[in-house]
Order: sequence, then C-alpha cells, then structure tokens
Amino acid sequence: MEDKISRVLKNMKEAGLSQLIVADPKSIRYLTGVYVDPYERLFALLVKADGKHVLFLNNLFTISETDIEKVWYSDTDDSIGMIAEHLDDGRLGIDKVWAARFLIPLMERCRNIQVELGSDCVDDCRAIKDDKEIELMKKASEINDKVVHDAYEYIKVGMTEKEVAEFINKHFVEEGAEGPSFTTIVSFGANGADPHHEPDGTVLKEGDAIVIDQGCYYKGYASDMTRSSICGEPSDPDYAKVHDLVREANEKAESIIKPGVRLCDIDAAARDMITEAGYGPYFNHRLGHFIGQTDHEKGDVSSANTDTVKPGMIFSIEPGIYLPGRFGVRVEDLVLVTEDGCEILNHEDKHWKSVGV
Amino acid sequence: MEDKISRVLKNMKEAGLSQLIVADPKSIRYLTGVYVDPYERLFALLVKADGKHVLFLNNLFTISETDIEKVWYSDTDDSIGMIAEHLDDGRLGIDKVWAARFLIPLMERCRNIQVELGSDCVDDCRAIKDDKEIELMKKASEINDKVVHDAYEYIKVGMTEKEVAEFINKHFVEEGAEGPSFTTIVSFGANGADPHHEPDGTVLKEGDAIVIDQGCYYKGYASDMTRSSICGEPSDPDYAKVHDLVREANEKAESIIKPGVRLCDIDAAARDMITEAGYGPYFNHRLGHFIGQTDHEKGDVSSANTDTVKPGMIFSIEPGIYLPGRFGVRVEDLVLVTEDGCEILNHEDKHWKSVGV
Repeated sequence: MEDKISRVLKNMKEAGLSQLIVADPKSIRYLTGVYVDPYERLFALLVKADGKHVLFLNNLFTISETDIEKVWYSDTDDSIGMIAEHLDDGRLGIDKVWAARFLIPLMERCRNIQVELGSDCVDDCRAIKDDKEIELMKKASEINDKVVHDAYEYIKVGMTEKEVAEFINKHFVEEGAEGPSFTTIVSFGANGADPHHEPDGTVLKEGDAIVIDQGCYYKGYASDMTRSSICGEPSDPDYAKVHDLVREANEKAESIIKPGVRLCDIDAAARDMITEAGYGPYFNHRLGHFIGQTDHEKGDVSSANTDTVKPGMIFSIEPGIYLPGRFGVRVEDLVLVTEDGCEILNHEDKHWKSVGV
Repeated sequence: MEDKISRVLKNMKEAGLSQLIVADPKSIRYLTGVYVDPYERLFALLVKADGKHVLFLNNLFTISETDIEKVWYSDTDDSIGMIAEHLDDGRLGIDKVWAARFLIPLMERCRNIQVELGSDCVDDCRAIKDDKEIELMKKASEINDKVVHDAYEYIKVGMTEKEVAEFINKHFVEEGAEGPSFTTIVSFGANGADPHHEPDGTVLKEGDAIVIDQGCYYKGYASDMTRSSICGEPSDPDYAKVHDLVREANEKAESIIKPGVRLCDIDAAARDMITEAGYGPYFNHRLGHFIGQTDHEKGDVSSANTDTVKPGMIFSIEPGIYLPGRFGVRVEDLVLVTEDGCEILNHEDKHWKSVGV
C-alpha cells in the first residue's frame, strides 16, 4: 500500500497537485486497506504531497487498523469545516465521485481554493493491476466461465429470464464468489436488442436469441463476460451472419492489443468491421470499459480515448449489434495487457450454439 | 406529476432559483415517471422556471414515454457541453448527489454561472408524502412487521446471523415486496454494539442479545424497523434495564410528535432520557432519518435540525444504546405525521422478549 500511495503522489506531482481528496470507497480501500460503505455520510481521504494524509470518518463507521491519521466526526459536527482546516490555499484535486453535497459547501467555505478533477491520479494507478490483483481477476473470470457454461446446460424452453438469472447468481456463490458484480443480464428474443435489459418474466421460446451478460466478485475483484446463443434453430434468418460478424469483430479487436496501441484504434478495429458490413448504426456503445474493484472503472475503449495501452491493464472488448424488435448479439471478453500482447481471461467458447431444446 | 413539478417550481421561486439540475434518479422518477439506473453515465433533468424542462439521456438508456423534452447523447458526445447550451448565466441549483465528474467540468465551462446546492427544492417536496405514497409505505411497513415476526419464530440457537438475514430477505419477496431496502442487519451478542454490523457467520448462543434492523421496498417505497430481543435469558445483568430505557425513549419521542414541533426537540426527548440514565455516550447517532423512495432520504431527526414537523412527513425514531464488548439495543419505528399527532407505522411489539430456545 505504501507503494500505491507513492504512485499516487508521483501522479499528483506530475499534475501539479499538492493535495487531493479521495472519496471513492474502493480507492480508499486500495490506498489504505480501510473499507466503509458510507451511504450518504462523508468519508474521505486527504492525500497530501508532504505525506500528512488524513482520513475523515463518521464515528458510526467501524474500521480495521490503519496507521493513517484519522479525524472522527459525529452526525452533528461540522465535518466540512473539519476538512477545510486541513487544506492549503491553491489547487485542490477532487475525486470524480465526490457528491455536490460535500463539494459545494467546501468551495463556499474555502474561497482561496481552486478545485479541479484529480482522481485520475488514483484511477491511473488502479488501471494497472499488480500480480495479486491479476491473480484475483483471473479467478473471478474462471468462475464466470464455469457459471455461464453451467447456465447454458441448465437453460430450457419455457424458463423465464429471471429464473436463469437466479441460477447464475446462486452458482456464483456456490463457486466461491461473493456474488454478482452487476445486475445479471439475461435477455430472450427481442429483449436482447436493449443492451441493458433487466431480466423479467419473459419466457424462452424455440428460435429465440439469448444474451447472457454476467460477472461476479471474487475477493473484491470483478469479472464481466457476455455470450450470445440461440434456443434451437434461429427464427431470424440473419442471426448466424450477425453473430459471426460480432464474434469476428471481437476477435479482430483482441488481435491488435499490445502495449503502445491507442484505445481508440482498438475500438475502430471492431467498429470498422461492423460498419463495413452495414450494421454501424446498430452498434451504439463504446467497445469496452476498464474493470477491477468495480465492474466499470475509469477508462474506456472508445473512439474518444486516445490513451495508449500499458501492461497490467484489464478491460472488456464487447462489440454488439442490436436490431430493434428482432434480437441482439454481444460477445464480450476481459483482456489483460501483457508485455507483448494480451491474454484473454475468458475461455468459454464464443461461437453461437444451439441450446435449451 | 404536474403537481409535483409545480411544487418544485414554487420552492425554486422562494429560493430565487430559475434553473435547477436534478440528478438523483429517484427525484427524476418522482418528477417525470422516467426511471434509469445510469451507473457512471450522465442522467439529469434540468428544471427551468419558464417551464422548458429538459431531460439529458445516454442513447443506451431505455425509458418509458414522457412529454418532457429530451436530449440524447452518445458515449462519445460532449454531454456536458450539451447541458451548458441550455443554461442561462447566473445562479444554478445543483442536486446534492451530482458527482464532481459532471459538476467540475460544467463549472469550468460556464464561468458566468454560480452553482449552489438546490436539491432541497425537490427534497422538501419528497419529504411530504401524498396519499398514494402513504398507502405504499404503510404496506411496506406491514410486510416488514410480518417478516420480523416470522423471523423471531424462525430464529434458533446455533443459527448464524447470515442464515437469519437470508430468511428475512427471502420472506420479503414471498410477502410481495421487491426485496430489502438496505442490507439487513442481524447482530448477535457483542456484534450488536456496532450499529452498522453486517451479518456474518457468528452463531447464536443462549444469553445473546439480538438486534434485527430490516426494511423492504414495496412498489418503490421503503420500510425500516429495528427490534431487539434476547436468546433465552439475558447473560448480561443490565440487558433488561437498558432495553426498557431504549424502548421508553422511543415511546417518549413518538409521544410528542405533531405538526409544529421541531425535529431537534424530538431528538432531545429521547436523548435526554438516555443521558439522564447515564448512557448518553453510548447513544452515538441521530434519533432518526427521513425515508421514502430510499431508506435514507434528505432530512433527519437530530440536535442540529431545527426544522419543524409537517403533516405527511415519514421518518424513523430509533434510539439505541451500544455497549462495546457487551451488547446493543435499538428500537426503531417509522412514524407518519398526521394533522394533529402521528401514526406509528410499525405494530410488532417492541418490548424485549426471549426467543430462539
């Protein structure tokens, strides 16, 4: 953790910041080992260039031991004033997740402080996983592979999306995970054309396309994978062609990943292929997102992101085609950037296959 | 909903605000009927005094029909710039939950706009429940009463906290609720001395104090109640005395609730009683919180809140005494403020009783 704080301080120095408020509970856990779910209460770590870091906590929080200086406040204390006392005039980095309920009163009180977004100093560290984190994320993806495989064996005509999602959530726990890392998506038929459809009482019929997008937490680290398949024989004559195209776009993007490649170029590798086949308007989201202690961490694989890839980064590659009223296909893996390429963390076959009959 | 927006506009006028950014998804649902869980993406409703309200949405969101003007953006659009185009120079109210990732770029771009916290304009409306909301919250509390009653029948020596919590969560759904409205708290023995203890593998032994703090969602509205009891005969000689004191403090506070009374005086009614008995330092949180579409809504019953009570408000009354290393007791009801007093929404007996043997 000393090492992690040193990396953050180095980033702060490069950004010209001598003070930074970290508010994302997972960033605080990453830097201190202390984890609290603060609900609406204030929970913040002030990181200072001079090493005098301070953790601000409500006296209702129960925490593990830590050497960092702590300031405890009660529900009726002026907690923002207590933070203000520890700040210097000038620039102050702010965590991207910090709520206006804290930020605005702090700005009103500290007129000689200029706030700016500063959480990149932490997020850029979080984006590069160390060996221990890689090990946990591989295990989370291994469980994910196993559970989606079992789900495809379990799924049968007549089941509802909810039943299948419950099976997946239950099996995560049975395989040693804490539980899902986001709301498990199971979509049948035309529901799959909404990339964020939540499982409901829709019943599986022969010929329906099936999209399963699932992930779990293993020791605090997330997995995330999507597989698309069909119940029996596809009722839509374009299904096989569209699925092959999406899978090939996924494979094409994965094939060019190595240190130094720009994230926008990885997005383009998949997107151009889909656009050339005439489905561009139906792939309406970025190609992928970073992942770690939460399913969506800072950083994405999109046309707007010109950052380059570095060893230790883990992100998703998830092209999709969504045909309203008909079906959707998405094929998603997590990839780990290595010294000379990438390692795909999901091993479940990604061709479409017939299931459930 | 027209009526709700009118009430917000009235509050904005009183606050001198002609424009307000609403970002809490439940506030947006309250005002428009549209619900989205945006994760890290931008989702905001701009409420304007001239009636030209605008909803900003990512094109991945799927929403129900609404008459409000919509601005759709994609993952690669400059969404903050799209909001900026709709703003006027001068004061701008900001939702307390809005994240710095949106607020700071907006401030940097709009140098002639002065931001201030403005969500009270919505939250003060949300705090006064209408008849439909009261009906749903009564039902949510009715289910909560039933499930805690069943849990006390179910609980037995040798069970773990987790097993009891799972029973409660499962029964919420069986009784028609969507599920828990917060992480169900089941604490045995000394674990109860941490007010926010999360259920773990701790096994119930004879003589252990038991704290159960639970709530569920019914059609989007929350309940929340705590009951404290004992497994067999109390192993701690002070248990009965402390429990009686906490229950009497709860009843004392509830007895003075009526329109016009200050929230801080309700807090004092319970707190003074506990302090006079010598347990003041062991009651280390506010007396209660407002509740509605989430378990903790804006507003609390604390020594710092001099606002007065109004008909239609619903909040918790939950004194507690926490004796480190020994046990904890908390007794919590939800109360609805009526025209001339209050109605207690929980009916499960709150005396301590012996269970589990």
